[in-house]
Parts: sequence; C-alpha cells; structure tokens
Amino acid sequence: MTAHERERADLQRTDLARMAPVEVRAAIRERRWTGMTHGASPGSLQANLAVVPERHAFHFLRFCLLNPSPCPVIEVTAPGSWEPTISAPGGDLRQELSGFRVFRDGLLVEEVPDLLDLWTEEHVGFLLGCSLSFDYALDSSGIHMQHLHDPETDVQMFESNLRCHPSGPFYGPMVVSMRRIPRSLVARAIEVTARYPKAHGSPVHVGDPAAIGVDLPDWSADASTVPMFWGCGVTPQAVAIAAGLPELFTHSPGHMFVTDLGLDGVPRTTWNSG
Amino acid sequence: MTAHERERADLQRTDLARMAPVEVRAAIRERRWTGMTHGASPGSLQANLAVVPERHAFHFLRFCLLNPSPCPVIEVTAPGSWEPTISAPGGDLRQELSGFRVFRDGLLVEEVPDLLDLWTEEHVGFLLGCSLSFDYALDSSGIHMQHLHDPETDVQMFESNLRCHPSGPFYGPMVVSMRRIPRSLVARAIEVTARYPKAHGSPVHVGDPAAIGVDLPDWSADASTVPMFWGCGVTPQAVAIAAGLPELFTHSPGHMFVTDLGLDGVPRTTWNSG
Repeated sequence: MTAHERERADLQRTDLARMAPVEVRAAIRERRWTGMTHGASPGSLQANLAVVPERHAFHFLRFCLLNPSPCPVIEVTAPGSWEPTISAPGGDLRQELSGFRVFRDGLLVEEVPDLLDLWTEEHVGFLLGCSLSFDYALDSSGIHMQHLHDPETDVQMFESNLRCHPSGPFYGPMVVSMRRIPRSLVARAIEVTARYPKAHGSPVHVGDPAAIGVDLPDWSADASTVPMFWGCGVTPQAVAIAAGLPELFTHSPGHMFVTDLGLDGVPRTTWNSG
Repeated sequence: MTAHERERADLQRTDLARMAPVEVRAAIRERRWTGMTHGASPGSLQANLAVVPERHAFHFLRFCLLNPSPCPVIEVTAPGSWEPTISAPGGDLRQELSGFRVFRDGLLVEEVPDLLDLWTEEHVGFLLGCSLSFDYALDSSGIHMQHLHDPETDVQMFESNLRCHPSGPFYGPMVVSMRRIPRSLVARAIEVTARYPKAHGSPVHVGDPAAIGVDLPDWSADASTVPMFWGCGVTPQAVAIAAGLPELFTHSPGHMFVTDLGLDGVPRTTWNSG
C-alpha cells in the first residue's frame, strides 16, 4: 500500500464532517469515500437523486411540484447534462454519489458505483430534498436524533394512506418517515422543520398513526413522546418504480448527493467543522 | 335592458373587492366583468397565465424553476386540462380570465375573450406569480403604492441586463419592475416582499439602475426615494414569445387569474372585504 493509497483508505466519517461539499464530492468521485453520506459537510443540503428519460421528465417534475412535502425540488438538470449548475456548479451527478441503483421496467437490476456509461443525452437528473438535512437542524436545535449518533438505529418509514396528487404515469401513496418526539418539543419540531421546505418542511401528520393508515398498535404506550410523520423522499422513487419507467437511476439508500446549498436552499460560502 | 342585464352591467370594481375568488372567476366567466383584475378579492394571489404546447412544457417549467424571481410557479396543469386543481379547484383557465392573447410563431395574432375553441389536449397551462399581489402587501404595510389607487399611474417595467438561466429554447434578459420607495422604508419593503416568493419575493436590485443595465439618468434627482427592482412576470412571457413557439396563449396585460390561494401560496378559506 503506497502512502497515497493509505491516505485514500484512511478517510473517516469524521473527516467528512470537516469537509466542504465540493471536497466531499471529490472524495466520492475519486473513490476515497464509498460509504453513506450522513455526517458529511453538516449544514449542507443533501439530496436524493432520480434520473429519468426526458420524455417522462415533465410529468415527473409536475408530480414533484404537486407533492412538495415528499418531493421538494432542489434542481433539475437540462436533458443530457449531469451538472447541477445552481446547487453544485461543476458537479457531476454521474460519479459524485457513492452508490447508484439501476431500475429497468420497474425492476431493480443493478447497483453500480457510477453512471458514466449509462447517462445519455436522453437523461434528466432530479435532485430532491432528503430528511437527513432537517435531522441535523432538529438535532442542533435540541431535539435529539438518535439515528444521527448511533449507526445501528434508523428512522422508520411507512407507506401511508395519504394519496399523492397524480401526474401522468406517476401516482401512489405517500411514504412517510416517523420520528418519536418528546411531547414538550412537538411544537418546536414543527417550527424547526417548517423552515426547511427543501428538506420536506413541516410534518404531514402528528399523533395517532392510524389516522394516516400506519399500523402501529403500540404507538401510545410511551406517553412521553408523540409520533410525528414527515413526507419522505422514498415517495418519488417509489412512484417512479411503480410507473415502470423503461429506465430509472437513483442513489443507493443513504448515499446522497451533497450540494453547495445550505439547509435553506441558499448557496453557502462557509461551513462549520461538524 | 332587463334587470338581469342591468345587474350584469353594474358590477363595479368595488364589488370585486368584496368578492371571494370563486365569485370573481364566475363573474368573469359569465362576462359580468371584462376589465382588469387589480382590486379583485384583495389578499388572494393573482397569477399570470402562459399556455404552451406539451412538447415545450418541460423546458418551460424548468426555465421557471431556474428563475424563480421573475417566474414563481404557482401551478401547472396536466396536459389538456384547464383546471388548476390546487390553486382553484373547479376553475377553468379557458374562460375565467377577462382577456387572452394568442401568439403564433412569436407574433401576437389575436386578442380573444376566451380560449374555449383553442385549448386542446396538447396544451399545458402555467400559472405564475404576479406582482399585483405583493403590491397589496406593500400598500397594507404602510408603503403607499400609488398605482393601486390611481388608475392613471402604473408600475414601470424595464428590460435589465440580468440574464435568466436558460432552459432549452427559453432564454433572455430578466424584465424587472421598478418602484421608488421612501429611503426609510427600503428595508421594510424587502422584508415584506421576501415573505411572498410566489409573488416574486425579494427585490433583485436596489439603487443605481445602471448597475443592472437600466437607463434612468435622473434616478438620483429625488434623494428621498430609492429605486427598487423586482423580477417581473413579463419575463417568462417575453422569453416564450422570443422562443417563437408555434402556439402560446397568455392573459391580456392586467387581466389576471384570481386563485383561491393567499399571498403566501396557502389556500384561503376567508377573505376581507377590501
């Protein structure tokens, strides 16, 4: 192992926490980082990726605009272009995420490390908000997010009975993420997440899970917390898969695109080291 | 003249100020009101209309998202549908504006009272924010907007040297509207308009017009006011015309679509009488 290789191999998650978004993206492009992106460049807006054929792009974009809670639009590339010129100028959506999934006709056929051989003139890249971003905002406002600190835990996701507004071939239920929030902090959690519409914004439901078709019989056993539900970025992926698009590329779960934007969607010029 | 006809003819602008958006739209559909819509249902978000062929809809929508200041997207209809299901459920974009313009290959060919015979399965309707809405917010926050009170005056518009982000065939300069604001109220004017991103939001420039390519040699003669410039909804229309679309329908100037949304883009269930 050369010194250069050791340096590459030795990159830790704590290093990512001190890196600017452009450095995180370079580390991913150079395969110095192949893991998930939680903790990378805290305070930077991270994004889900969906790449769809141009002929489906209008309906898909309209679907996202009709359903801003699960599908907040951060940026949409020009057909054939992999550069998000606003949210990451100079960036490359083909190789600056650390894992991709390839779906054909609605079936997952492959996981690939990059899209260099797959992205054609036909493809349009969608960057959509993800809740990783507001989890940091919640955590740093005093609402402890256990899953940010313990890799063994995770946010729970459920298919709800809330129907998304349909658009062309895209329709289906809203997938929601659930966080149990201390009763005294419910209003605060709404206040904080409402500030970040590009990261799902306000919750879609607070309290009894059955009200939105989520089956959690024991939900009220712990009276000190309240289940809160937010629109989840899995939704647009799920409807695009269900639509059976001939071709659809997405990020691998947890392997997000780190933009140059702050959580509020405005470009950042500075960042804090973790 | 029958009593019914007299009642139709007698509708005054002051009546519009007491009407709910759905009533204003009905009055327009029934030709009881054929004038401009300033003063109608105050506090309701009014919108510019652009109707484009479906094959241009993705690029046009992407253009609007890339340029949210001049082109805030309120709603986009499904291809062939004239109903804005979110911002005016049950509404009809073909006949609930009081005047339309028809452009072919980039040329204005006709002004028509409705689009009943023109709107086909191919057409997608775009409702985009207009500054009429935030003019009311400014006026009611103590920043007098003369043109709301005096029909002889108007907001001035200019082509700036700010370039819009291009998308497909859509590109060009940003058109801006100018308001001269008392020096002591500049911050207040920014604060108020920043709250309404669906109605152009914050100004794009404050001060010396030459900085954005606007030629106003005498701008500093009146030192008690400062020229402030906002993105203007004429921009998307201008780029769509310049793109030479085979077909483009728009509202006639000042004849806006009155939505059920408040100035903040959230559906209203009550309204004030002026």
